Amino acid sequence: MRIGLDIMGGDYAPNSTVLGAIAAQAHLATNQHLVLIGDKDLITPLLQEQNFNPDHFEYIHTTEVIGMGEHPTKAIVQKPNSSISVGFQLLKEGNIDSFASAGNTGAMLVGALFSVKAIPGVIRPAISAIMPKLKGGFKILLDAGANADCKPENLLQFGILGSLYAKHVYHIDDPQVGLMNLGEEAEKGSLLTQATYPLLKESKLINFFGNIEGRDLFNDKADVVVCDGFTGNVMLKLAESFYVLTLKKGLKDEFFDRFNYEQYGGSPILGVNAPVMIGHGISSPEAIKNMILLSKEMVETKIIEKFKTAFNS
Amino acid sequence: MRIGLDIMGGDYAPNSTVLGAIAAQAHLATNQHLVLIGDKDLITPLLQEQNFNPDHFEYIHTTEVIGMGEHPTKAIVQKPNSSISVGFQLLKEGNIDSFASAGNTGAMLVGALFSVKAIPGVIRPAISAIMPKLKGGFKILLDAGANADCKPENLLQFGILGSLYAKHVYHIDDPQVGLMNLGEEAEKGSLLTQATYPLLKESKLINFFGNIEGRDLFNDKADVVVCDGFTGNVMLKLAESFYVLTLKKGLKDEFFDRFNYEQYGGSPILGVNAPVMIGHGISSPEAIKNMILLSKEMVETKIIEKFKTAFNS
Repeated sequence: MRIGLDIMGGDYAPNSTVLGAIAAQAHLATNQHLVLIGDKDLITPLLQEQNFNPDHFEYIHTTEVIGMGEHPTKAIVQKPNSSISVGFQLLKEGNIDSFASAGNTGAMLVGALFSVKAIPGVIRPAISAIMPKLKGGFKILLDAGANADCKPENLLQFGILGSLYAKHVYHIDDPQVGLMNLGEEAEKGSLLTQATYPLLKESKLINFFGNIEGRDLFNDKADVVVCDGFTGNVMLKLAESFYVLTLKKGLKDEFFDRFNYEQYGGSPILGVNAPVMIGHGISSPEAIKNMILLSKEMVETKIIEKFKTAFNS
Repeated sequence: MRIGLDIMGGDYAPNSTVLGAIAAQAHLATNQHLVLIGDKDLITPLLQEQNFNPDHFEYIHTTEVIGMGEHPTKAIVQKPNSSISVGFQLLKEGNIDSFASAGNTGAMLVGALFSVKAIPGVIRPAISAIMPKLKGGFKILLDAGANADCKPENLLQFGILGSLYAKHVYHIDDPQVGLMNLGEEAEKGSLLTQATYPLLKESKLINFFGNIEGRDLFNDKADVVVCDGFTGNVMLKLAESFYVLTLKKGLKDEFFDRFNYEQYGGSPILGVNAPVMIGHGISSPEAIKNMILLSKEMVETKIIEKFKTAFNS
């Protein structure tokens, strides 16, 4: 297995990405290799500082970088030698089995759609995110922001993708899929959620819980939360701001600790033909480490094959 | 001034509504009267228990009630003698100057639209809500759930309504209007927010701040938050669940205290021809008292006249 990591991505790259790679290395088997993509001249002194044997990693040297503020599509097209573009090229050619970056989110999304492309049958891939449940365990939320405008068929597919992901990667048995809505009643909602409800209810590929509300994000209702990317993005950022608030206020609690994005490492793009992971811009070495380990998990569980089977049957 | 209160509305009615009315009475001037609408036979013993002189209130006796779970439109049509229907009839005829209820939210919305109706020029009235700012003060958020599907013109009007409300009722000088969106950049967003951005930017009736994100709900960015009712409803319920969580966890903090809905009393429907206030279903006497006092404030500040002027000029 070859796990690709963009060493130039994120606000604290390459320090945080290199340190994260070193930390992850300890958890990899001998047949699992980290492939670092980026400026090798920046990496080498960091490895030396850590007294780390550089032979543990493979390197794809490139100095071009897509900045955090660049326009995603333009950047992907105009910077074919950027670490993100090179990573996707390697992924497309099968030279790496997964690709992760804490860099420009939009470029990661565009790069994934342009290179490895959506799985046949998947109309729109989605970014998934993790939310801690109050009583323990996690919820998978999607779409977290890839698709601001969605159709009912998109939301149904998010339910299928999230359900398989929850089952195989998070080992949630028979995960329940909830539709984020204005109220619990079946007839409630926007035009989108009203039209989505019967699709989710009738699908044989998921275990539909029914509607859930904003107040249900952290309780035991449903394991997978389906919503359009606008709603998902707003909810995630709001939830994150609450977590930051508890930190600022010095409020310590086991539940709030589980909000710490560092533990989850990254948000995978579900529905493309390979494991692609987007890290938080502020990713610490711990976050990078966990993003690498989640990449490994996605390769090991053959989740992409499960997606392909579901959408081609 | 005659302030109408549905004594039958809310999970703890009539106890909580009557106790709230008694508490509010102490804050009213001699020319400000509370008009209690509901079953007088239930009210009288409660007033006696409190040794409260019943002559302080006026009464409109009716025994019919719209339940919390009833279908709003059907209930309004089929129960013309319900406390909510009677309240709106009194409001429409000018027998009361404002109407408040912690009962069925949908029935309150439908009742307002059917009776006093939208202000000429206002396409869709909106429910507004209050969010505490971390550094003190408040934000007005609308729409909090009246309109699950919105057009750009609706969001522009929410901005105008919220701006006038923030200025005149919450005494926020030159309030800034923020558009809830996926990112800060002008070109970001859903089809709805992308089309709304230039309308808000060009409007001479508001002071446009620009886009804000889910993480900005409690910071100093903007005084008025504009969004569709689906997003607003999900955000409010999510924020409320966080507040409930801090209570459960026993986390005390001045900021979290300011989340307590009881302090704000109710959510006005902005854009109809009279002050209409919807209380939280679980309204306590304190919440009812503050809902009454906010009704009074809306009448005193002549906010409806300000709305009419803005939309008819």
